[in-house]
Amino acid sequence: MSEVREKSSLAKGTLVTLNRLTAAEKNDALMKMADALIEEQHSIIAANQEDLERGRANGTSSSLLDRLALNESRIAGMAEGLRQIVELPDPIGDELEHIERPNGLKIEKIRVPLGVIGIIYEARPNVTVDAAGLCLKTGNAVVLRGGSSAISSNKRIVEVLQQALANSAIPVAALQLIEDTNRASVDEMLKLNGLLDVVIPRGGASLIQNVVQNATVPVIETGAGICHTYLDATAKLDMAAPIVINAKVQRPSVCNSMETLLVHEDFAGAHLTSIAEQLRSNNVELRGCERTARYIQLDQNATEQDYATEYNDYILNIKVVNDLDEALEHIRQFGTMHSECIVTETTAHAERFLQEVDAAAVYHNASTRFTDGYEFGFGAEIGISTQKLHARGPMGLPALTSTKYRIYGTGQIR
Amino acid sequence: MSEVREKSSLAKGTLVTLNRLTAAEKNDALMKMADALIEEQHSIIAANQEDLERGRANGTSSSLLDRLALNESRIAGMAEGLRQIVELPDPIGDELEHIERPNGLKIEKIRVPLGVIGIIYEARPNVTVDAAGLCLKTGNAVVLRGGSSAISSNKRIVEVLQQALANSAIPVAALQLIEDTNRASVDEMLKLNGLLDVVIPRGGASLIQNVVQNATVPVIETGAGICHTYLDATAKLDMAAPIVINAKVQRPSVCNSMETLLVHEDFAGAHLTSIAEQLRSNNVELRGCERTARYIQLDQNATEQDYATEYNDYILNIKVVNDLDEALEHIRQFGTMHSECIVTETTAHAERFLQEVDAAAVYHNASTRFTDGYEFGFGAEIGISTQKLHARGPMGLPALTSTKYRIYGTGQIR
Repeated sequence: MSEVREKSSLAKGTLVTLNRLTAAEKNDALMKMADALIEEQHSIIAANQEDLERGRANGTSSSLLDRLALNESRIAGMAEGLRQIVELPDPIGDELEHIERPNGLKIEKIRVPLGVIGIIYEARPNVTVDAAGLCLKTGNAVVLRGGSSAISSNKRIVEVLQQALANSAIPVAALQLIEDTNRASVDEMLKLNGLLDVVIPRGGASLIQNVVQNATVPVIETGAGICHTYLDATAKLDMAAPIVINAKVQRPSVCNSMETLLVHEDFAGAHLTSIAEQLRSNNVELRGCERTARYIQLDQNATEQDYATEYNDYILNIKVVNDLDEALEHIRQFGTMHSECIVTETTAHAERFLQEVDAAAVYHNASTRFTDGYEFGFGAEIGISTQKLHARGPMGLPALTSTKYRIYGTGQIR
Repeated sequence: MSEVREKSSLAKGTLVTLNRLTAAEKNDALMKMADALIEEQHSIIAANQEDLERGRANGTSSSLLDRLALNESRIAGMAEGLRQIVELPDPIGDELEHIERPNGLKIEKIRVPLGVIGIIYEARPNVTVDAAGLCLKTGNAVVLRGGSSAISSNKRIVEVLQQALANSAIPVAALQLIEDTNRASVDEMLKLNGLLDVVIPRGGASLIQNVVQNATVPVIETGAGICHTYLDATAKLDMAAPIVINAKVQRPSVCNSMETLLVHEDFAGAHLTSIAEQLRSNNVELRGCERTARYIQLDQNATEQDYATEYNDYILNIKVVNDLDEALEHIRQFGTMHSECIVTETTAHAERFLQEVDAAAVYHNASTRFTDGYEFGFGAEIGISTQKLHARGPMGLPALTSTKYRIYGTGQIR
């Protein structure tokens, strides 16, 4: 039996036990996982060194090496993340509906775990801890498949967490790491209907597209964000400028940062030079349409391809539009249904934008950077769903659950 | 452009308009659709005759021909189904969560349509009307792909419904029928990411498996049901027998009927002959395990393959088990996570069964035949989901919706 099938089967075998656990038992296990990370931090850092050395030998960029690197402070952060998950209410067992039928049947709709969750992700080893904590807290088993660049770190982290589980009510086998980092192990997970209940990809656009295109197991699509901010004719400069700067430069590498700024021609005439100056002083490269070039100096013209690109970098497209309709049409064409913003003092325009834009999160007068489980007050996040089924937007613990109907009868028949 | 792509694009083009409609406007359109079916019943019946004649020429079975046949009474039933959908509350626009953050952001989670829904189904033309009504009521556009055996009926029905929409606020293009009944048109729909938001298969196991195995568009899996009833040691005969008979023979062709009866050995010793007699007098063929054969005469031994078969017919497997654990293990191995029942007077056993069995609907002392949107009081049903993501069990109108976050700010940045 392949590693993927064997470990997924072992994970599935723990579901009955997981399903029976109380919130206190699961929280106790998560606390032990957190403590173990701290106790074993030196062996984890040593394993991480192996990854870093391999990365340097392979010519990995310094920014990727930085994301990969672990130190005492980052491990403390991972442990603290687990303790924060402990503090969250356990959604399992919540009664979502209670129906009493005329024939006397009592029907309860109850939150239950999803089952076995496959997580396919890339470099950062903190995802290993984070995903394990969120899945186990919600009574799911989890099969982790991280990238080759972090394999030594991931192996040591999972060993440490499994040792902690051995002294808890959660079965050790509920947490599995696929150590085969060949592409074939991902492909096998994507077709493992009957053993995996869902696969969640976390990473760049090509990883996510591979999962979406090839999975027969249900997928929760996360991530890709080509987010727009539209400055309407009545936007105020002193509100618009900070929102634009924040959405672009506060953390350009993440999915909820802005890639294209849409500007009403009236606002552009009055204020685009000022906005552009502030962007430039934040080292943002500016690309734009022909009309934009009438107002400001551009680094280059923006092409259709630019509008369709998630830069995740200090690069911004700017397009001047005639009106709200043209802005809405641009977003329909190029948006990825993630986060979209209008800055306006015209209530009717805000209402139309929030109504018509088809995205997980639509903003009036606030930065798109708020699309985040912590910022929404969920206390944790397994990712940001950009699909419409099951969960949409930042996913907290309830996104890792399903439901079941329990029906209590006294002999009813149809 | 292919028919599938062209019609799906046209459907998608109506989403902005659909999204803006009030409940009253959508209900008015559904009432007009219902009226049009009655007014045009003779032309629909004439089209249906073409299907029936083709079916007879092709040697279609009389039971399939019966499911395909339309008459005045069945068309009246279809129109009445639409009027019942009108009576249901419109879930679109419902506020599901309201969050106020310390920074002043107001976050609303709102129900929105899913978008463009593809429905892939087989013979019965009533699905055409039903699916159109449910999707349009929830502000979705719908692309229908029915089977070749009902194509003349489906074409005429969709023409009639589109004529009704022409006099309503719902755009005609929101309702599309794929007339190409070659397998290729299904395959194309399954890969139409970006145009179709979800595909729902309705039909037999092979249709559903084709969709699940080949779709890159998100799928809501419906249907297949290998349902069990477990008679525990303390079950009372006068409750157990009617539940068993009802679950097997009231309508054997549907997914929530029973395929395998599990019987505790104590109950078997006391009552299996009586249960078997009642089943036989209802023309049920009995297959069973070796232990069952000690109590009653069997038509044949039950094989592993039998336990894994959805008969949808007057055939039943019977297996005698030592205890609840063995029953649970059998259901884990052969169940399809649809509907499962325990009949017992032992509360602890009922609780364990309802807790541990991983199915959309788990019953204590009632027939599995109740797994149905109407029986649950939802007033309508697009199908019964046997997957764990998005919707599980009978799906009413909310299963055809997604959500979006609307965020109201006053200039907030991170």
